[in-house]
Amino acid sequence: MIQVKITILGGTGRFGRGLCFRWSKNHEIIIGSRDESKAVQIADSLNAELQKFSIERPIMGMGNRDAVQKSEIIVLSLPFDHLLPLLSEMKSFFHSQIVFSPVVPMMKKEIFQFSPPPEGSAALAIRNVLPDSCRLVAALHTIPAARMKDLSKKLEGDVVVCGDDQESKMLIKKLIEEMEDLRFLDGGPLEVSKMVEPITPLILNLKLFGLKKDLAIKFV
Amino acid sequence: MIQVKITILGGTGRFGRGLCFRWSKNHEIIIGSRDESKAVQIADSLNAELQKFSIERPIMGMGNRDAVQKSEIIVLSLPFDHLLPLLSEMKSFFHSQIVFSPVVPMMKKEIFQFSPPPEGSAALAIRNVLPDSCRLVAALHTIPAARMKDLSKKLEGDVVVCGDDQESKMLIKKLIEEMEDLRFLDGGPLEVSKMVEPITPLILNLKLFGLKKDLAIKFV
Repeated sequence: MIQVKITILGGTGRFGRGLCFRWSKNHEIIIGSRDESKAVQIADSLNAELQKFSIERPIMGMGNRDAVQKSEIIVLSLPFDHLLPLLSEMKSFFHSQIVFSPVVPMMKKEIFQFSPPPEGSAALAIRNVLPDSCRLVAALHTIPAARMKDLSKKLEGDVVVCGDDQESKMLIKKLIEEMEDLRFLDGGPLEVSKMVEPITPLILNLKLFGLKKDLAIKFV
Repeated sequence: MIQVKITILGGTGRFGRGLCFRWSKNHEIIIGSRDESKAVQIADSLNAELQKFSIERPIMGMGNRDAVQKSEIIVLSLPFDHLLPLLSEMKSFFHSQIVFSPVVPMMKKEIFQFSPPPEGSAALAIRNVLPDSCRLVAALHTIPAARMKDLSKKLEGDVVVCGDDQESKMLIKKLIEEMEDLRFLDGGPLEVSKMVEPITPLILNLKLFGLKKDLAIKFV
């Protein structure tokens, strides 16, 4: 097991909280926020929840600059809407970290719509605002937040991982395979994220039109 | 079992041939072509193959006008490239039939790319060239042609069906569920095809980057 430092930007949502809980068993987790005291407060509340599961390693809270600079992996667990200006503002904090995007740009207008930026996907737009030295990996779009957060249930499903740097994809593969029954699938270059991100609004539409629960996908 | 008349436009490809074989057990199948004698020739060769599987009902070949006007369901088993001009030309043959689109606009340029028309999906562009009285249903995009054609193996996977007319979706549901282990999933209105069609080039990319065979999808 390789232990890594992982920063989660957006640790308050169900998805981000689920990731914190699941990865804190083996790794050092940092919550980043613009406001350091808020980050510490979120970390404290996560640690209180973690005690129920006898996980001893505390999650730390830091201001965005420290949280990003001190980690090897930065997870963007934030809605797409305000993400690009936020990352532009923080650009100087990034160097050669692995940036992990499960971000899906979407909106609801009768049905759930995929609403990508001109680049064609959130991941491709994020790549354009980060320094070239950052290695961007897109994955975990199709694992429902409700399941991610529920530690009492096993995660299952396939995780298509897209990125242009093979080494960082292999590290993300390890992190994904630590999460029980998830299967890593190499999706090729970051550009393939254009075909992965729309699956999330599709899954939400399937629930709207008859399926009972939050679903993941498998290729069979 | 409701028996229906089904016309397949493009019965020579693996996908179209597979559909002909599988539906000919219970339904009347017509192959349509611009050139009637070519349609008859294709139908004859399909009938010769069908004899191996002791299916007695002969497939018929007709010119496009008769093939389209005489059927209740028209399957567009053709590549997207020249489909819109062909349908425009044939517009007057369509009245209130159900038009079934498994069409996915894509191209290969290092990776497989989803290359939709300005409407956002093949299905939405097809709707624009057909008379309003036609009821368009989009489905079966994610069932691999190689499996469709191989009658010795069971089909499995989920089939997301999109369309704006509920009655025609329910008829397509029956036709899908006749094909062994396929599960019908209501994908809502035709607009959702924008999120279903990109899954086909994604599946082709997964094979390019490591998966061994043609895959279908399941929601779990």
